[in-house]
Amino acid sequence: MGSMMSEGVTQVLIPLAALIGIVFALIQWFLVSKVKVSTGLTESGSQNQRNRLIEEDDQEVGVDSDQLVFKCAEIQSAISVGATSFLYTQYKYLAIFTAVFAAIIFLFLGSVKNFSTKSEACTYNKGNMCKPALANAFFTTIAFLLGALTSVLSGFLGMKIATYANARTTLEARKSVGSAFITAFRSGAVMGFLLAANGLLVLYVSINLFRMYYGDDWEGLFESITGYGLGGSSMALFGRVGGGIYTKAADVGADLVGKVERNIPEDDPRNPAVIADNVGDNVGDIAGMGSDLFGSYAESSCAALFVASISSFGASHDFSAMAYPLLISSMGIVVCLITMFFATDFFQIKDVADIEPSLKRQLLISTVLMTAGIAIVSFTALPSEFTIFNFGANKLVKNWHIFFCVSIGLWAGLVIGYITEYYTSSAYSPVRDVADSCKTGAATNVIFGLALGYKSVIIPVFAISVAIYVSFSLAAMYGIAVAALGMLSTISTGLAIDAYGPISDNAGGIAEMAGMSHTIRERTDALDAAGNTTAAIGKGFAIGSAALVSLALFGAFVSRAGIETVDVLTPIVFIGLLIGAMLPYWFSAMTMKSVGSAALKMVEEVRRQFNTIPGLMEGTTKPDYATCVKISTDASLREMIPPGALVMITPLVAGTFFGVEALAGVLAGSLVSGVQIAISASNTGGAWDNAKKYIEAGGSEHARTLGPKGSEAHKAAVIGDTVGDPLKDTSGPSLNILIKLMAVESLVFAPFFATHGGLFFKWF
Amino acid sequence: MGSMMSEGVTQVLIPLAALIGIVFALIQWFLVSKVKVSTGLTESGSQNQRNRLIEEDDQEVGVDSDQLVFKCAEIQSAISVGATSFLYTQYKYLAIFTAVFAAIIFLFLGSVKNFSTKSEACTYNKGNMCKPALANAFFTTIAFLLGALTSVLSGFLGMKIATYANARTTLEARKSVGSAFITAFRSGAVMGFLLAANGLLVLYVSINLFRMYYGDDWEGLFESITGYGLGGSSMALFGRVGGGIYTKAADVGADLVGKVERNIPEDDPRNPAVIADNVGDNVGDIAGMGSDLFGSYAESSCAALFVASISSFGASHDFSAMAYPLLISSMGIVVCLITMFFATDFFQIKDVADIEPSLKRQLLISTVLMTAGIAIVSFTALPSEFTIFNFGANKLVKNWHIFFCVSIGLWAGLVIGYITEYYTSSAYSPVRDVADSCKTGAATNVIFGLALGYKSVIIPVFAISVAIYVSFSLAAMYGIAVAALGMLSTISTGLAIDAYGPISDNAGGIAEMAGMSHTIRERTDALDAAGNTTAAIGKGFAIGSAALVSLALFGAFVSRAGIETVDVLTPIVFIGLLIGAMLPYWFSAMTMKSVGSAALKMVEEVRRQFNTIPGLMEGTTKPDYATCVKISTDASLREMIPPGALVMITPLVAGTFFGVEALAGVLAGSLVSGVQIAISASNTGGAWDNAKKYIEAGGSEHARTLGPKGSEAHKAAVIGDTVGDPLKDTSGPSLNILIKLMAVESLVFAPFFATHGGLFFKWF
Repeated sequence: MGSMMSEGVTQVLIPLAALIGIVFALIQWFLVSKVKVSTGLTESGSQNQRNRLIEEDDQEVGVDSDQLVFKCAEIQSAISVGATSFLYTQYKYLAIFTAVFAAIIFLFLGSVKNFSTKSEACTYNKGNMCKPALANAFFTTIAFLLGALTSVLSGFLGMKIATYANARTTLEARKSVGSAFITAFRSGAVMGFLLAANGLLVLYVSINLFRMYYGDDWEGLFESITGYGLGGSSMALFGRVGGGIYTKAADVGADLVGKVERNIPEDDPRNPAVIADNVGDNVGDIAGMGSDLFGSYAESSCAALFVASISSFGASHDFSAMAYPLLISSMGIVVCLITMFFATDFFQIKDVADIEPSLKRQLLISTVLMTAGIAIVSFTALPSEFTIFNFGANKLVKNWHIFFCVSIGLWAGLVIGYITEYYTSSAYSPVRDVADSCKTGAATNVIFGLALGYKSVIIPVFAISVAIYVSFSLAAMYGIAVAALGMLSTISTGLAIDAYGPISDNAGGIAEMAGMSHTIRERTDALDAAGNTTAAIGKGFAIGSAALVSLALFGAFVSRAGIETVDVLTPIVFIGLLIGAMLPYWFSAMTMKSVGSAALKMVEEVRRQFNTIPGLMEGTTKPDYATCVKISTDASLREMIPPGALVMITPLVAGTFFGVEALAGVLAGSLVSGVQIAISASNTGGAWDNAKKYIEAGGSEHARTLGPKGSEAHKAAVIGDTVGDPLKDTSGPSLNILIKLMAVESLVFAPFFATHGGLFFKWF
Repeated sequence: MGSMMSEGVTQVLIPLAALIGIVFALIQWFLVSKVKVSTGLTESGSQNQRNRLIEEDDQEVGVDSDQLVFKCAEIQSAISVGATSFLYTQYKYLAIFTAVFAAIIFLFLGSVKNFSTKSEACTYNKGNMCKPALANAFFTTIAFLLGALTSVLSGFLGMKIATYANARTTLEARKSVGSAFITAFRSGAVMGFLLAANGLLVLYVSINLFRMYYGDDWEGLFESITGYGLGGSSMALFGRVGGGIYTKAADVGADLVGKVERNIPEDDPRNPAVIADNVGDNVGDIAGMGSDLFGSYAESSCAALFVASISSFGASHDFSAMAYPLLISSMGIVVCLITMFFATDFFQIKDVADIEPSLKRQLLISTVLMTAGIAIVSFTALPSEFTIFNFGANKLVKNWHIFFCVSIGLWAGLVIGYITEYYTSSAYSPVRDVADSCKTGAATNVIFGLALGYKSVIIPVFAISVAIYVSFSLAAMYGIAVAALGMLSTISTGLAIDAYGPISDNAGGIAEMAGMSHTIRERTDALDAAGNTTAAIGKGFAIGSAALVSLALFGAFVSRAGIETVDVLTPIVFIGLLIGAMLPYWFSAMTMKSVGSAALKMVEEVRRQFNTIPGLMEGTTKPDYATCVKISTDASLREMIPPGALVMITPLVAGTFFGVEALAGVLAGSLVSGVQIAISASNTGGAWDNAKKYIEAGGSEHARTLGPKGSEAHKAAVIGDTVGDPLKDTSGPSLNILIKLMAVESLVFAPFFATHGGLFFKWF
């Protein structure tokens, strides 16, 4: 009973989908590039374009358009240079970490069989011979390096397109909200498709290359491939934490002096921290998030592949069935491509109010289409019946079971997305209640915001629970892994929606800095407000999928470590659970304190500049942007190390000294606790940000009673927004990575822990 | 191998200790009563006292002392009347709940064997005959009612002594800090000793009465006794939540208008919410906390007794060994009594700086003495060797094992107490850093405060983990139960320290309202600042012991439900874990939102009064205190129902529809997640409060750079303090009860769930 699809077809379809994704991304990039920000306006094309712009731009009468374009280009280039330079510096640190950690992987895994080069009997496929543990150590290390490289590349490319698109979005905002939206959204799509396609392609190529050595030893092959997920996620950790500290130190610092003390608008060019703030959006929310979602994608694929390799597909060497996770991702690229047309071509954004519905429609369309896509892949690639490894036993599974598993993950993602939107968009009562509570000051705003975040956890947790229950009941841990993959299958659309947020935020910043009119700023603000909601939705997806991915990895770890039960009634498991549940708090304490301290330094510097540079407040002198950039850079590089170390070292210590059961407890504890904090932190932050924007925009009778900018209620809202910054952009999103990374690290090191772990109990 | 102590001696010692505790409490009450607040000053005793007061009180020159005493008496009476009337109203609601829930217990448990009145074979002591399930249902209901009554009584008596002592503390503050401290601390001791002694006595009497029916059926006897814990904790839940909402609605409302908008001092008599605020301290922090700790005490005793009854003590009917938990509590009363003399007689408080060291010394002394006490009880009451029921198996345990279990619980409590002090006292760097962050405004203050709370979780969780590991390894679930009991064995001292806080807070309020001099207010403020720290320590104990108690109850539930493993790898357990970890967030969202909404109403009313009552701001007209009291009362009674229902209904739904394993997951999840939020919430709140007090007091060079009252930094600190109010006094402490109550409820209903549970899986 093999799959209907032959190996040859599979081997063509996967790279084809990846190439389609890449080509489509490049086309989008080309379309974005048609908006000119260059200052050489001599060619007729640009001349025409400029004329067209001026014709439509009745708001900008009296302002020299050439000068504006030039200013935008200048600011864009400053942001791009800042972001690139920061990432290069960060990569130097990461290169050292990667080299050291690669050595650790090789040595730890090599030591499992004392660096013997002899082939061994397989662990699961008893009777067959498998490659030596030393080979697994070597290939795991290679996969780790490949994952790290791809992750860094995903973040870097995202940053490049984002800093390429921000000024273009600003310029398009002169035409209409719709044009600006399309530019920002297309740019997000470039990132989304490049990331999904690259991730798929590298994984696909690696598997085929590794196979040249491993041949029929699929156990060893897919054990080694798990290194890919570890590499991806460990880069994502530092990217998210470092980028998160960078951006929020600058943002909080800029706001505290600029908005609160000096009463100048957000992104005002007189504010010395303004460039650092805009650079931060690109290194944190773009590069960090790109690495993060790539990590999730790589890990869920690896978890599914690993479980499959020790199931009947693996034993019968059915490549098409084995490659099912890759085929789902391939289908995802195609589906997202079709979905894109609904945003850019089939519908038009005519008004600010159209933005959020359009983005929500993207989610819905991609989910509906993908459900059909999953059916096609499931019924052609999978055999109609097969067995899945289930903690020592084998479970009989049918292909339509797997269809349900992937689909429920996908739809759970949609539910999480919609709920997140409900709690973070100013169109609904939760954010409006928070805005309302600003009437009585910052304290009630903070209390209501925290309560909102806590409450927003309820339905996503139930959605994840249902997905877990259904998928596990149908196909054990493989079901969970493919459910995670289902949630991530529309990653290109998800990322496009998500990346659109920071691009619009930057566009608004550039408009302000270039001194463009109120109308332009209002348009970019509207884009940005929708962007806050979509960023929260993106974070909701990231955490939802992280929960499923971690559980799948946890299951794979447990299988590979040879544990058959993780019993809460054994003290070591319970303590693991308790300490695991504590880790997200420890981690958040570190990252929030880092942001706070770095922001304090930034505040001092910004104050110093306002007090000592004559003419700065009047706008006649330029501030010293570079010192602020340096403060953010130094803080983020120094402060990303302790939380990073906590995450990387904990599984090694728990596994080596207290054994695999303790480690299993730690993983489960950090998972169930981290999910809650991550969701509540990102929704609380998103809600505060939009409550503030709601008051500023004054779009309703109610909002006008609270505003305008500078009113007491608005000041209270700004305080909430500032508190929310590290919650939603540093601590919250980093927690996804904490739970995933500890799980994938445990999976990679499982053979070592199983052999040499639990030293504490051996000693005492 | 029976215990050295005969049953006769045990039967004398326990009630004797309880009586000693009650007599000692009455003596302390008598000593407090010697400070006169009556206005009938004709008797010579009062006259002398007054003369003495006036002589020493050089600060109050020119103020008529008679008038002051009269004013204090008047305010005290207003607070006392308010608190009593609120508690009576609350008890009416609780009476309805108790009646309904008693019926549910009887019907559910009675249905286990279809209300049969026939005796059954015992569950654990196979071969013996046990009383019918219907009898257990009946006696469990009785025990529930007794527990509820004792819990309510504990809270009520605490409130009575606290409202009796507050004005007396104020008056004593005219003499010296030392005298005021002694008065407040003695009053706390009255509550501590009464509560410990009553709890012990009622439990002791109930066991003996129940034995008259049960005879040798100790399984049934101690199964029924668990109802006592459920009764205690369910009253505590409503007490904590209702009281917490009451007090914080008033506090937040009073501060937001009074301190922030009108710039009048805290507790200013012109503030219409000031009486409600002071009443709140007594119904929330005193009555609520009393019920809470009584609940913990009752539950840990019940958990230990239940596990013991199905172990070898129970089988051999060794009463002294069975009564070990009660003997430990008896010893605790004696040890705390000795410890008291160190605070009130052996050392003298001469200066503000002596207060915290003196309270810390109390903790240390009681812990050292109690360790010896535990040794005495362990080696006399327990047989040298016996077996403990351990999830189906029997574990051989020696008496010195149990000594270690109790002691490690006790010492873990000390560690938690000291760490809490470190994080919440302004004598150390964490709170000073938070105060420092106020320089840049409320946002950084909130960020630093949240980070502090998260960080403060680390060491307590490790302390609890070590206690769990050691006590479980030595004596399985019995070890955990007695470790919890060890932590609570010095409850009289702990409560004295804890109750001292709100009493001092009220004393300060009365000083302000009576218009006493700055010096007096400074003294009461110093007492109050130490009180914030001790309140946080008390909450630390409460949550630490709650964690151990819940785990013990969880173990007892698992044993009684007949589960042998709770495997995280089964989907239903994992989902239980995930949803359980979410419940504290849901619960906190409800309680915080309740406080926020009630505070908004309070703010509107206070503003209305300031705007419409002429002469109020000038102090020539009295505000309408009663309306504010009514707002707090109505809000707390209405809003305590949903969170209460969440906690009471969840175990019933989980157990009935999804079975005992799902419920086990929910309990474990809410435990490991709730502990973290509870600790971080109460420490964050305590730290904010003391950071504010640190700035106000200006006791160091550093503090003076941030102050004085009314500075920007101080305003930021006030915002932090206000946010912390619901965290530290409503959500945080209620979470202890959430985790304990769900566990004890599961234990009580275990026979029902085991028989009729898991309907969902039976249907599908």
